Amino acid sequence: MNKIRLSAIFKLQSFIIFILSLITFVIPLIYSVYLEDEEILCYIIPIFISLLLFSLSAAIKAENITEKEALIIAVSVWFVFPVLTTISYLLSGYISDPIDAYFESVSGFTTTGASILTDIEKLPESLLLLRSLTNWVGGLGFVVLAVSVLSSRLPIGRSIVKFESSKIIEERIEPKVKEVARIVITVYLVMTLLQIFLLYITGIDLYNAITYTFSTVATGGFAPKNDSVAGLSSTSAEFIISLFMILGAINLQLYYIAFKKKSLKSFFKDPEVITYVGIISVAVGISTAVLYISGTYNSLWESFRYGMFQIVSAATTTGFSTTDYSEWHPSVLYLMLLLALIGAVSGSTGGGIKIFRLIFMFKIIAGEIKRIAHPKIIYRPSLKGKVLDISTVNMFWAFLSLYLFSLIFFSFILTLGGHDLVTSFSASIACITSLGPGLGEVGPASNFSSFSDFEKLMLSFEMIFGRLEIIPVITAVFIRSI
Amino acid sequence: MNKIRLSAIFKLQSFIIFILSLITFVIPLIYSVYLEDEEILCYIIPIFISLLLFSLSAAIKAENITEKEALIIAVSVWFVFPVLTTISYLLSGYISDPIDAYFESVSGFTTTGASILTDIEKLPESLLLLRSLTNWVGGLGFVVLAVSVLSSRLPIGRSIVKFESSKIIEERIEPKVKEVARIVITVYLVMTLLQIFLLYITGIDLYNAITYTFSTVATGGFAPKNDSVAGLSSTSAEFIISLFMILGAINLQLYYIAFKKKSLKSFFKDPEVITYVGIISVAVGISTAVLYISGTYNSLWESFRYGMFQIVSAATTTGFSTTDYSEWHPSVLYLMLLLALIGAVSGSTGGGIKIFRLIFMFKIIAGEIKRIAHPKIIYRPSLKGKVLDISTVNMFWAFLSLYLFSLIFFSFILTLGGHDLVTSFSASIACITSLGPGLGEVGPASNFSSFSDFEKLMLSFEMIFGRLEIIPVITAVFIRSI
Ligand SMILES: [K+]
Ligand SMILES: [K+]
Repeated sequence: MNKIRLSAIFKLQSFIIFILSLITFVIPLIYSVYLEDEEILCYIIPIFISLLLFSLSAAIKAENITEKEALIIAVSVWFVFPVLTTISYLLSGYISDPIDAYFESVSGFTTTGASILTDIEKLPESLLLLRSLTNWVGGLGFVVLAVSVLSSRLPIGRSIVKFESSKIIEERIEPKVKEVARIVITVYLVMTLLQIFLLYITGIDLYNAITYTFSTVATGGFAPKNDSVAGLSSTSAEFIISLFMILGAINLQLYYIAFKKKSLKSFFKDPEVITYVGIISVAVGISTAVLYISGTYNSLWESFRYGMFQIVSAATTTGFSTTDYSEWHPSVLYLMLLLALIGAVSGSTGGGIKIFRLIFMFKIIAGEIKRIAHPKIIYRPSLKGKVLDISTVNMFWAFLSLYLFSLIFFSFILTLGGHDLVTSFSASIACITSLGPGLGEVGPASNFSSFSDFEKLMLSFEMIFGRLEIIPVITAVFIRSI
Repeated sequence: MNKIRLSAIFKLQSFIIFILSLITFVIPLIYSVYLEDEEILCYIIPIFISLLLFSLSAAIKAENITEKEALIIAVSVWFVFPVLTTISYLLSGYISDPIDAYFESVSGFTTTGASILTDIEKLPESLLLLRSLTNWVGGLGFVVLAVSVLSSRLPIGRSIVKFESSKIIEERIEPKVKEVARIVITVYLVMTLLQIFLLYITGIDLYNAITYTFSTVATGGFAPKNDSVAGLSSTSAEFIISLFMILGAINLQLYYIAFKKKSLKSFFKDPEVITYVGIISVAVGISTAVLYISGTYNSLWESFRYGMFQIVSAATTTGFSTTDYSEWHPSVLYLMLLLALIGAVSGSTGGGIKIFRLIFMFKIIAGEIKRIAHPKIIYRPSLKGKVLDISTVNMFWAFLSLYLFSLIFFSFILTLGGHDLVTSFSASIACITSLGPGLGEVGPASNFSSFSDFEKLMLSFEMIFGRLEIIPVITAVFIRSI
């Protein structure tokens, strides 16, 4: 077994943190200088710290890192990098408790979008820009992680690729990890620019167009206003944001294929996308009907408009809202939690269990029914044309079991703190799926500020666990001891 | 593929129903005659109907039935037999709605113990005896079903035996299904007589000793009094009932082995029993601490006494209560729902997912962690010394997926009816696990009477689905069409 070299980890980690801090802090710094606000140090100091780390690491001789070391870096960066934005928040003085600031930072980078802020609009614009950027950088980082580090020769990586890439991609591009990463970054950038442009031409000012877009394509959900997307007071913006939430929750590689082939066939051929769009459509239909019949809205149009936005926001695990839905009919609330739990398409910025795993579960069930009826036929479930061997099947279920156990464990921690069942369970779902808002004490009109420091720290870990799809986390923890 | 012969099914079904109706209705009939109450017809008519069916079936030539036919009988009897007690309830006039009466009947035979009665004590004693007997007969029927029909040569049966029997039993007795059934029935009878005796010598009158015992060993939870076990006003009875709830929730075959070998080693060697007792102990410890610290009770003794009973009642899926716990600290309520969902030991009368499946999940997770750390080692999970092949693994996960989907589906049906999230989710857990009472509208001081007829019917099906551990149900539905 290879020894893990902390120096090599530190060297690469410092480099990654330096790059991330440039993307994260330079734009708010420029905006801060432009506005001549008093927040300049909030952005300069983190850049300086990351530069310092990077300089220190320059003394270490460059070496190829092993797969285990890469995995450790990929996991630990989610815990470490948010410390820099924690420093920003603390320096600004708008968040005074370090745990609060860390929670807000982790919530940003994991694209969860859960907040401890009680009055968002009190914060200076440059700081809110930084806050939205944490969503954007986190979303990008997650997708790049999924296609690069995790698709390495580690067994875990191979299996994820096996599951997560569409067949077409897998055959053509899998070995060229760097190329896939470049494609994904390009798609993400184009998507971002397109949404900013669309919001801007429909009358949203550039600052809001940019901040809302950062949190939309990342399915992050941080908004620079207290009432989320309702704060924009624009119906066209609602629909643009709905569209881009869905676009951000679909495998980014498919856009590149569609662009290359000048055809949308890649979308219609992808079982995940079809299932996903189908599920969302049915859910929008149900919620529109329920909101109308239960009298929440008097017109079918309004029932559709509000129902659709909230459902899409939940299904994409974005967590934006256009109304305080906490008193809505319980069936719609239940549906929203369920959709967040099911989650988005793999290879996207969205969270949750992911659609391909749902498809997988149904295949297993269907296979068992067939097998019982025809005991002599050996049935083996397949995904995207490949028969799954027992290792892949076991890893899949291990993931699902761990996901559910974590969900239950963190809910239980919250109930121990005296929070009611709806608050505890929905907050745990909101954090592990990277949805953001929950119900009860953490509903859309509320936030996570009422939780204790211990609970906020636990939920920060849950957000990272959920984002990393857990197994690599556990591996990283155990890798040295086993 | 064999043709399914309805006449053969009808013949055996009629015979089984006749036997069941003798066990179910003769005792209340005798008690009714003894009391000279006005309910005699409620017991005579169902016996007469089953006798009529049996006589009609006598005209059919006896044939060996196939495995598929046996499966169909084993499933359909849970839907059909409760019709007879439905008739009893309706004839008595104490339940006037047929769906209510069917719900109460299914709830009895599935040992769920959920009730639509708002004033139980209004019912005549002979009818309450019948009601407790539905629990007792259902619990016995379930265990016999598990060891006989399901352990046939059907692949489903074989796999269940593989999982459910302890290794010792499997090697020695598996082929002799009838012998195992006889052992299980004997253990059940001895357990019943022992509990009646213990309750009686501690001062409970014979009628209550018998009715409470019927619902205890079956982990059923029907009580002849409005406040469940609190109605007995006896601390010693509480502890006797706690003990027998646990005894009823442990593999009945283990008692026989212990008796034969004059040693309790079979219990300590069984990983399910050890895990189960461990989980209950930890949960009792937590709940005692929480109830004391949160000030629900002022003394540690009372915190233990009430905490222990409610936790044991939930973990064994019995559903008895000694207090209205609905306002207890949320962590204890959460723990109770979780324990019911995890369920009891296989081969017992208890419900839920079952302990061996929990152990299995942990083995899969542990295996994956080992595999990631040592990619070259092929790791295969095993249970009770046997390596599990991919078919067994798939069937296990198919069960778990279907169980969770059903739980979610039925909860959603309830939210559509406008019930709040806690009511809907807990009612669905209470029905699928055969726990009985839930929280919110269906809490311990309340009942299922506020649900609509449609909802009661759906929950009746959910109780049967949960009791049959689902896959045979699906198979029976699909077996003709596939
Ligand atoms: K989010
Ligand atoms: K029960």
